[in-house]
Amino acid sequence: MILPRLAPHIVDDAVARALGEDLGDAGDITSAATIPASATSRAVIAARKPGVIAGIDAVCAAFRQVDPAIQIAIEVSDGARVDKGDVLISLDGPSRGILSAERVALNFLGHLSGVATATAALVDAVAGTKAQIVCTRKTTPGLRALEKYAVLCGGGRNHRFGLYDAVMIKDNHIAAAGGIAPALAAAKSVLGHMVKVEIEIDRLDQLEQALAGGADVILLDNMSTDDMKQAVAANNGRAVLEASGSVTIDTVRAIAETGVDIISSGWITHSAPSLDVGLDFK
Amino acid sequence: MILPRLAPHIVDDAVARALGEDLGDAGDITSAATIPASATSRAVIAARKPGVIAGIDAVCAAFRQVDPAIQIAIEVSDGARVDKGDVLISLDGPSRGILSAERVALNFLGHLSGVATATAALVDAVAGTKAQIVCTRKTTPGLRALEKYAVLCGGGRNHRFGLYDAVMIKDNHIAAAGGIAPALAAAKSVLGHMVKVEIEIDRLDQLEQALAGGADVILLDNMSTDDMKQAVAANNGRAVLEASGSVTIDTVRAIAETGVDIISSGWITHSAPSLDVGLDFK
Amino acid sequence: MILPRLAPHIVDDAVARALGEDLGDAGDITSAATIPASATSRAVIAARKPGVIAGIDAVCAAFRQVDPAIQIAIEVSDGARVDKGDVLISLDGPSRGILSAERVALNFLGHLSGVATATAALVDAVAGTKAQIVCTRKTTPGLRALEKYAVLCGGGRNHRFGLYDAVMIKDNHIAAAGGIAPALAAAKSVLGHMVKVEIEIDRLDQLEQALAGGADVILLDNMSTDDMKQAVAANNGRAVLEASGSVTIDTVRAIAETGVDIISSGWITHSAPSLDVGLDFK
Amino acid sequence: MILPRLAPHIVDDAVARALGEDLGDAGDITSAATIPASATSRAVIAARKPGVIAGIDAVCAAFRQVDPAIQIAIEVSDGARVDKGDVLISLDGPSRGILSAERVALNFLGHLSGVATATAALVDAVAGTKAQIVCTRKTTPGLRALEKYAVLCGGGRNHRFGLYDAVMIKDNHIAAAGGIAPALAAAKSVLGHMVKVEIEIDRLDQLEQALAGGADVILLDNMSTDDMKQAVAANNGRAVLEASGSVTIDTVRAIAETGVDIISSGWITHSAPSLDVGLDFK
Amino acid sequence: MILPRLAPHIVDDAVARALGEDLGDAGDITSAATIPASATSRAVIAARKPGVIAGIDAVCAAFRQVDPAIQIAIEVSDGARVDKGDVLISLDGPSRGILSAERVALNFLGHLSGVATATAALVDAVAGTKAQIVCTRKTTPGLRALEKYAVLCGGGRNHRFGLYDAVMIKDNHIAAAGGIAPALAAAKSVLGHMVKVEIEIDRLDQLEQALAGGADVILLDNMSTDDMKQAVAANNGRAVLEASGSVTIDTVRAIAETGVDIISSGWITHSAPSLDVGLDFK
Amino acid sequence: MILPRLAPHIVDDAVARALGEDLGDAGDITSAATIPASATSRAVIAARKPGVIAGIDAVCAAFRQVDPAIQIAIEVSDGARVDKGDVLISLDGPSRGILSAERVALNFLGHLSGVATATAALVDAVAGTKAQIVCTRKTTPGLRALEKYAVLCGGGRNHRFGLYDAVMIKDNHIAAAGGIAPALAAAKSVLGHMVKVEIEIDRLDQLEQALAGGADVILLDNMSTDDMKQAVAANNGRAVLEASGSVTIDTVRAIAETGVDIISSGWITHSAPSLDVGLDFK
Repeated sequence: MILPRLAPHIVDDAVARALGEDLGDAGDITSAATIPASATSRAVIAARKPGVIAGIDAVCAAFRQVDPAIQIAIEVSDGARVDKGDVLISLDGPSRGILSAERVALNFLGHLSGVATATAALVDAVAGTKAQIVCTRKTTPGLRALEKYAVLCGGGRNHRFGLYDAVMIKDNHIAAAGGIAPALAAAKSVLGHMVKVEIEIDRLDQLEQALAGGADVILLDNMSTDDMKQAVAANNGRAVLEASGSVTIDTVRAIAETGVDIISSGWITHSAPSLDVGLDFK
Repeated sequence: MILPRLAPHIVDDAVARALGEDLGDAGDITSAATIPASATSRAVIAARKPGVIAGIDAVCAAFRQVDPAIQIAIEVSDGARVDKGDVLISLDGPSRGILSAERVALNFLGHLSGVATATAALVDAVAGTKAQIVCTRKTTPGLRALEKYAVLCGGGRNHRFGLYDAVMIKDNHIAAAGGIAPALAAAKSVLGHMVKVEIEIDRLDQLEQALAGGADVILLDNMSTDDMKQAVAANNGRAVLEASGSVTIDTVRAIAETGVDIISSGWITHSAPSLDVGLDFK
Repeated sequence: MILPRLAPHIVDDAVARALGEDLGDAGDITSAATIPASATSRAVIAARKPGVIAGIDAVCAAFRQVDPAIQIAIEVSDGARVDKGDVLISLDGPSRGILSAERVALNFLGHLSGVATATAALVDAVAGTKAQIVCTRKTTPGLRALEKYAVLCGGGRNHRFGLYDAVMIKDNHIAAAGGIAPALAAAKSVLGHMVKVEIEIDRLDQLEQALAGGADVILLDNMSTDDMKQAVAANNGRAVLEASGSVTIDTVRAIAETGVDIISSGWITHSAPSLDVGLDFK
Repeated sequence: MILPRLAPHIVDDAVARALGEDLGDAGDITSAATIPASATSRAVIAARKPGVIAGIDAVCAAFRQVDPAIQIAIEVSDGARVDKGDVLISLDGPSRGILSAERVALNFLGHLSGVATATAALVDAVAGTKAQIVCTRKTTPGLRALEKYAVLCGGGRNHRFGLYDAVMIKDNHIAAAGGIAPALAAAKSVLGHMVKVEIEIDRLDQLEQALAGGADVILLDNMSTDDMKQAVAANNGRAVLEASGSVTIDTVRAIAETGVDIISSGWITHSAPSLDVGLDFK
Repeated sequence: MILPRLAPHIVDDAVARALGEDLGDAGDITSAATIPASATSRAVIAARKPGVIAGIDAVCAAFRQVDPAIQIAIEVSDGARVDKGDVLISLDGPSRGILSAERVALNFLGHLSGVATATAALVDAVAGTKAQIVCTRKTTPGLRALEKYAVLCGGGRNHRFGLYDAVMIKDNHIAAAGGIAPALAAAKSVLGHMVKVEIEIDRLDQLEQALAGGADVILLDNMSTDDMKQAVAANNGRAVLEASGSVTIDTVRAIAETGVDIISSGWITHSAPSLDVGLDFK
Repeated sequence: MILPRLAPHIVDDAVARALGEDLGDAGDITSAATIPASATSRAVIAARKPGVIAGIDAVCAAFRQVDPAIQIAIEVSDGARVDKGDVLISLDGPSRGILSAERVALNFLGHLSGVATATAALVDAVAGTKAQIVCTRKTTPGLRALEKYAVLCGGGRNHRFGLYDAVMIKDNHIAAAGGIAPALAAAKSVLGHMVKVEIEIDRLDQLEQALAGGADVILLDNMSTDDMKQAVAANNGRAVLEASGSVTIDTVRAIAETGVDIISSGWITHSAPSLDVGLDFK
């Protein structure tokens, strides 16, 4: 799997913010009181449940920011599927630093691996179909770039990152613009040539209008799988078709089998449970 | 329920960061292209599932930051238990602004209400016992203060906020200090008089050492409920006893009935599913 | 002309930064020493040369940040074509504040109106053709969002905002990927469905490969107008064609007349002279 | 030429801001998709037109911030006069990093070298006279410190940096204070002994009042060269005389030959065209 | 003495802010004009008066941030008692950098060592009693974490860091809550189990109410030493007793001899004179 | 007394930072637990000792940032000389907000009024002489602009604000440059015409060199008052003379009577004791 590298400043800023939450002004007062500054330890971070890993960079940043003297060995890469007990990262260095950074490192790793694992579950469920699993803008505030990246680690792809990088015309936009045709025309009259345009429809009879207006992508919102199949047939490859709404691990296969190109899920980012990971001293 | 007010700058900063993620440099290009600047709308935010609400301040901040001309009427307060369909907030103002802030507002509201709802489930499960449900430091990076507040909204209480505001001596600290007694002695020899000291034990025979060393709170880590009962009896009200490990909606009642004072759960912050909330134009 | 509204925080942050540069720690020591705190004035900001206006929001932000007591009346909107002497903004309020904010306000207005005016010159030059004038990533560091907006004010459109919102495969990417076909295939295998893909070619014989690979947009890099005409004919409406290189006010018409869809210019952002604007007390 | 070193945090902050504009949340998606993470390249940055160089530190910061593994060899220093084709900087390292940082690096280098080149043109034009070319506060918002430095690279000098570091009494201050004498007296009654005081006059008969009031520097605002000559004679070396207004490459020599000490130009910072520089892979 | 390590980002941020104040946009123009960039020097920082040292980390950060090429040898550690003339730090490196960072480094070292020295004076004065000297929230704005640390360097301990990490119920809270008992009950009904509760009393007859309400710590506010003695006797070891008000070097011993556990002083942070330290070139 | 207005963002930023220190993530937990959200109070801030006031703006900012509903009436202005008991500010509004902001407000007011009061003591001591009392760069890190302003409130004046706004050639610069003459020549050869140049001498025989080199100001470093008198006579009004070193309330009058123009003191900023101020509920 080819993964883009998260911009270092995005990881570093998010980790610095989280360390600030945990260290406050007084720092790790427990470790300062009970552990000599000169003590060193070896430790490993391991999976306590099977899953797909994301967030190794954040783990490294947490330890490095707390104490650059901590040696970090990365045992598995983002995107790896791991079993319970698999060692992900080995650490060697000042005990105080390892303990002070531990919780922040695990919070990132557990959260992002949770997103990757949830994504992979959907991706696995649609294996063999042409459907791609994509995330939405329903992300945890402050962590969008990292969660979008975790979706890639899980084998999914990214929908637009925000309101700024692609057009998505929803029902309220259509109503305000006076219909599908004028909404698409308005968008095309001002936007740059590098911006893709998606429009949401919830009835089959809107499909031809969306195609006629030149939509690059058409969102089939909360349609039945029967309607989706009809939309796929009627579209006949002209626009990219995206299914959205009521996507769960139980429903996703049937949706994929309708022939849609894209299935978007908010659940993989806003409700994925954390993957259980832990740090053990050796 | 008495709730502290979240410091406004914490809410405002978190919301500004999330809006920055969503608006980027180009802003909401869809609304700009399809909706006249002068258009106004009325809308409501409603619950789509039953739950406990948290994050009203963040919702208000999102709309206010995007366009102060949006009128906001708060229909329910943080901590309220709501049913599917209940209206939480009413909006009236520029359509563009309402649409541009919608997703960020809902992301906060869904996430924080999810934490409150999960907390309330555990709180309800232990009703009638003396046990309090508390959160841990296993929070979503960047959102600790908001999630700690959401736990209060759900009827729980807060454990320490970070490494800085209380002492928690764990197994690695004990090992580094040379035992429970020296670890507690070390902590008391340097810490201020306003800092509480908790120590983690995983065997009943450590309880007396912890009490002898003057621990304010003793964490019973992953003990069986039988061992917890024995610990409660042996402690006899001297220290506060906290149970931790394997706390789920299924196990929490039995743990509470052992007589422990505190039950801590990471699940309510790191894995609570988002509460489904939505915005509808009127 | 429909213009998106610049996100307020982008304008406010840029203005705050510029005010910080100008006021430093000691503030406007001249005004403090020579003008009573209670003195008030009326003033106007006017064009000293004809041009197209952009940056009214920044002007307002500068005065408002320095002293909210300054009353601001906006006489012309962004995108307006003005003549020498036209009044753009009227001010009424504390003299110290007006003088302290004057230079920052004018620096924004002059710079952004300069970009809009340069853009409009190219737009005028291609009037009647189908070519659109777009800007590039050759923007002034720190001012990209504002300059992209100023281009819209001048009647142009925006190319991608950065490396993050669209794909542009250049010669080095092609070489690294092993050719046009594998480069396009690689892009399509990992990117989301909302991302447009442009590829740069500098020879006519590359056009079919680019089309075969599914490029949404093809950049004709530094081609002669004869070659451009051949490319337009060969393309036959399949991809969007963009011309780039050696675009000046003297050459742009001929380029547009080749039939290309898009003409991109770095000059309108990196080298547009400031529009002369000034503030006069009444 | 002795040049001060720009404070590293000023360069680093400006570069980080510009990289943030270009990389956004998703980063360089083109390079991530088409170039293997392990690929390395050698490249040079060269001048495509003759000019004076400024901004080498910013170029280095851009590549270093994107990927510290990129080796950078500086071939010419700030202040150097270069010809078309001269190599300025050589690079060796990860291809992705070089491409991701390229545009930001060139945007700084082109902009600041444009300022230095414009300054040098005025400096050359007054060679042999005693006049010094200085910049004003008419700088690009957010880049004042870097542009002030670029002016030094071009052989010019700096006027005050902002409203905070020197006094400049203009017509509005004079009017508010009740005349030249009271304005100067007011300034001297409150300001520290390390602050220089300049006053603007637009008529010859104001010169003696300005001198009598103890002005360190007198600005001759938009005077004819004949009036400037008379001012120089009347001043007879008592105060420093600065000419301002209508300074162009065509008029500057005549102004310098009036005998004024200082000629200030806004054009060299607000309207200097970017110097054409480019990056070529080897 | 065991000292916690100040979180590096707290020191780095405070030093960066101070360097920003001193260097501004133009930097150290004196050194740039008079000292060659290649000149190197050796220098020492020494005490000019006896005292207790705090702030070595800030000194190192100042030189490192200005120029990482400066070699720094730490001769004494925080908490050391030094005599006039003792060398604290040795420096070797670029002369410009040493001079540019000198003042900021000395400002931190003098200020924090002043706090440590004042603290040590009170600590020495109560030697042999059980009383601990603690600081308050009366700290210099922006420097709380550093001053709290300097108090530890002087042998004192820390009271709460802020409003957030412990409860202190003062007269206004008591009045608002309707008395000591309801105030304590209210606090205990909502606060977490890791938060200590202190209550302020100014009359002996309030002591039993405070104890009955379960206060962990009782503040004896501005009581006479006779009353303090009675409070100590009545308390009989049940709560921690803290004396506050009119604590000076002259009164502190008598207060300590009453048997109170804690004596808090605002003077050691808000009014401690700077320790005289200087830098000498060798 | 004419006082410049501190730039609002400087006050606001410093206050926000201090409130952040005091409120942390959990906020004012005592007030939240014990005081109803709806409770309101009236309170006054009063001097508990005589002194000179500075910092009213910071007090207002603290209450406004915590709760804009608090009504603030300013009873005395910065620069006012007050007696024990004088009311400085009256407050009316939410009790929680008043209590949450109280300490930060008083910390600023006490610290800055302490600086103003110390300054006024020196200013009073030299009354009737021509000497002006000025501060130095020996300021509290992070508070330079506010302390410089407080010096003005106390009747003093400001020396340079930092390394960036004026030249001060000290012994090390002289040594590096090869003497007084070359040091001054170097400075004048590169600096702008708006920068004043001061040079430090410690022997009378250096005075003529300093004058010959064109120094605007000459610092007499740690000279005896006899030497100062000789310097004043020899200088004969040519340069501004500044005395520095061993300036105390006991020595300052004698120094002033030597006829020097300027007396600089680090003590008024780095060691001034806080002025005792307090808040009382009505």
